[in-house]
Amino acid sequence: MKVIDLRVRDIRFPTSRHLDGSDAMNPDPDYSAAYVELITDGDTDGHGFTFTIGRGNDVCAAAIEALRPYVVGQDLDTLDLGEFGRRLTHDSQLRWLGPEKGVMHLAAGAVLNAAWDLAARRAGLPLWRYLTSLSPDTIVDCVDWRYLTDALTPDAARDLLVERAPGRAARTGELISGGFPAYTTSAGWLGYDDAKVTRRALRAVADGFAMVKLKVGADLNDDLRRFTAAREALGPDFPIGIDANQRWGVGEAIGWVSALGHLNPYWIEEPTSPDEILGHAAIRAGLSQAGPGGTPIRVATGEHVHNRVMFKQLLQADAIDVVQIDSARVGGVNENLAILLLAAAYGKPVCPHAGGVGLCELVQHLSFFDYTSVAASLDGRMIEYVDHLHEHFADPVRIVNGRYAAPEAPGFSARMHEESLLRYSFPDGPEWKID
Amino acid sequence: MKVIDLRVRDIRFPTSRHLDGSDAMNPDPDYSAAYVELITDGDTDGHGFTFTIGRGNDVCAAAIEALRPYVVGQDLDTLDLGEFGRRLTHDSQLRWLGPEKGVMHLAAGAVLNAAWDLAARRAGLPLWRYLTSLSPDTIVDCVDWRYLTDALTPDAARDLLVERAPGRAARTGELISGGFPAYTTSAGWLGYDDAKVTRRALRAVADGFAMVKLKVGADLNDDLRRFTAAREALGPDFPIGIDANQRWGVGEAIGWVSALGHLNPYWIEEPTSPDEILGHAAIRAGLSQAGPGGTPIRVATGEHVHNRVMFKQLLQADAIDVVQIDSARVGGVNENLAILLLAAAYGKPVCPHAGGVGLCELVQHLSFFDYTSVAASLDGRMIEYVDHLHEHFADPVRIVNGRYAAPEAPGFSARMHEESLLRYSFPDGPEWKID
Repeated sequence: MKVIDLRVRDIRFPTSRHLDGSDAMNPDPDYSAAYVELITDGDTDGHGFTFTIGRGNDVCAAAIEALRPYVVGQDLDTLDLGEFGRRLTHDSQLRWLGPEKGVMHLAAGAVLNAAWDLAARRAGLPLWRYLTSLSPDTIVDCVDWRYLTDALTPDAARDLLVERAPGRAARTGELISGGFPAYTTSAGWLGYDDAKVTRRALRAVADGFAMVKLKVGADLNDDLRRFTAAREALGPDFPIGIDANQRWGVGEAIGWVSALGHLNPYWIEEPTSPDEILGHAAIRAGLSQAGPGGTPIRVATGEHVHNRVMFKQLLQADAIDVVQIDSARVGGVNENLAILLLAAAYGKPVCPHAGGVGLCELVQHLSFFDYTSVAASLDGRMIEYVDHLHEHFADPVRIVNGRYAAPEAPGFSARMHEESLLRYSFPDGPEWKID
Repeated sequence: MKVIDLRVRDIRFPTSRHLDGSDAMNPDPDYSAAYVELITDGDTDGHGFTFTIGRGNDVCAAAIEALRPYVVGQDLDTLDLGEFGRRLTHDSQLRWLGPEKGVMHLAAGAVLNAAWDLAARRAGLPLWRYLTSLSPDTIVDCVDWRYLTDALTPDAARDLLVERAPGRAARTGELISGGFPAYTTSAGWLGYDDAKVTRRALRAVADGFAMVKLKVGADLNDDLRRFTAAREALGPDFPIGIDANQRWGVGEAIGWVSALGHLNPYWIEEPTSPDEILGHAAIRAGLSQAGPGGTPIRVATGEHVHNRVMFKQLLQADAIDVVQIDSARVGGVNENLAILLLAAAYGKPVCPHAGGVGLCELVQHLSFFDYTSVAASLDGRMIEYVDHLHEHFADPVRIVNGRYAAPEAPGFSARMHEESLLRYSFPDGPEWKID
């Protein structure tokens, strides 16, 4: 079985027509996907995508096209996904455009994720179970270890996986019966008024979510008012995260979050630039007594952290408490395996970023695998959930009692309905033509 | 006067047909430019480009096209280049693709540099003199201060510029009469045999260059042999830099460079990933006694450092000795002004990366301005020089006695001959059609 064609489509949903998804840095997103199909000469294809928020989705599509020579003609029976990943990210000319960051890395991730979708489909397993079935050696070989070994060696990673192997079957069973904890961001977009925030937060708690999250960072008085309303509605202890979407510099972040500290934020997410290793460390230190009664406030980041080298340093510098992987930002499953292993080695929980379009569908597989095989713990772990655009997917996420139910269909849950792909094609699909 | 069109061309030179330009990570570059013209309704246009090494140059061209709405229609009489820069890098949707890194940032830099070319041309001055003519307030306003103020505030930057203003006219005169120190990489490409390295190194010294540079990192025995040959030819004290082009992890870098330490490398350039804040700091510490007689070996990086936030942290962590700005990697002149100011505030010399195609032409203006107005010192400063492809430029660099002569023509020296643009257009120009 061979890949005989690579198909790329620019898919955009006009979400900016409402205020859903608005935050301090992204006021008007049109959730979009540069959507990849690996067409084979066999009976199944591989689908994947990278997520963007509108303009520039065509640039990602062009970057995916640039990877075509590495994909078309690939024999799938001899495909080594570790080697394939390194090939996509180490083309000596394309590497100049990063390395391993920005548009080219988003593109590599989309193609790699499509290859994983295809591999899991061929195995007849949902991706998380396919990953769980692979040997520690195979998982370790999927990682590009360049620039990592000062923090974690392949041998130490293999030892960690072997050590966590006992109980894997039981944990798989637990996930199948009980799912994985989730939190929701649907309550707290900046565009919502206080009553809507409170109403939706209460519903989220009733639905069984483990946390709700509020967007902050545009106006401190607004943040205080909205957060106070939510805190009063939910009681003093229910976890409420806050998310600044990179709005602040270091000093401003410490000041602003300290002013909200009495409201007991569960974490502050993206207080500053995702490039800030030292800045996140300084912010975490500056918030070490900013919570109620002088308790620390957790620092979370990751949705814009561009590769494993940056995550490694955030962990080495003890700069964050929560590792927020994203399924479509870094170099696909391969690089997220590296990040899961690093987080486990440093004892930090992974709570994935999701939402947008299709990020929930993808990333659940990585968290499920993290529980069966890497972290082997649910303590402090939860996956973000946003109730958006799932209807476009062939195998949408299922939320049961505020938890992600275990995906059952073979593959990476990446596939959109052909009808949706046609309707939301940009700029020629009917959804965009009618404007 | 208005911008009435944006023209983008994919220009590639088939440099991989020879071994010029080969190093440990870039074995076969085709030096390329995604070339931008801002077409105006007046009597002059603005030219700029971003540099790539071949494949993916089309992706950069697509990214530049994505910026068209911010450019076409722009009134040049009211153009504020600081505000224009922030507009190009802060589109709320395009920002998702970075932020401020990779392909989109290369594109923003190309467009911004074309706007500076146009502004300097309209002023009738070479860019370095145009920059020197601007007030400290104007320079400070060109910088995007978000994420910088924990290291340097706008007020402190203004104070620095005011403090360095005395002597500006004298330093301008010095540059006009004596030029700026340069070093050459033309001697030490990996593809060259020992005799060619030695011969070219001796010629570089005779030509007056301040340093020669050897590529290392592919094979330690080869490096020892080539470096020993060069050291014996040039004597114990002539500065010889070595450049690993990101080949190593932290431990490997310390070991490898220590093994070359007795040969007295002037600096080790790009020992590891450009994303490594902590890694460069560890390498620098690990090399603090690795030179002859237990002296430290300098660490240099920057050609792949993707923005001011990363440079800021390299300085905060005291991770490098030499700041290697690149004219076409970060967000254009504006972001390089930020980096020059940061380097001056931390007392580190700026020695720009150049070579490729047109990087010498561009970056000389930034170093000349650094001397007139920011660092106000030549101590430890030199600009890389490679004798490649200058014949394609309307205002090529001039090297006199191993130094960059002061550019005299108005603009940013970015303009290529129309004949070259036509000949090397990819894939339809005659240079590519004949293959």
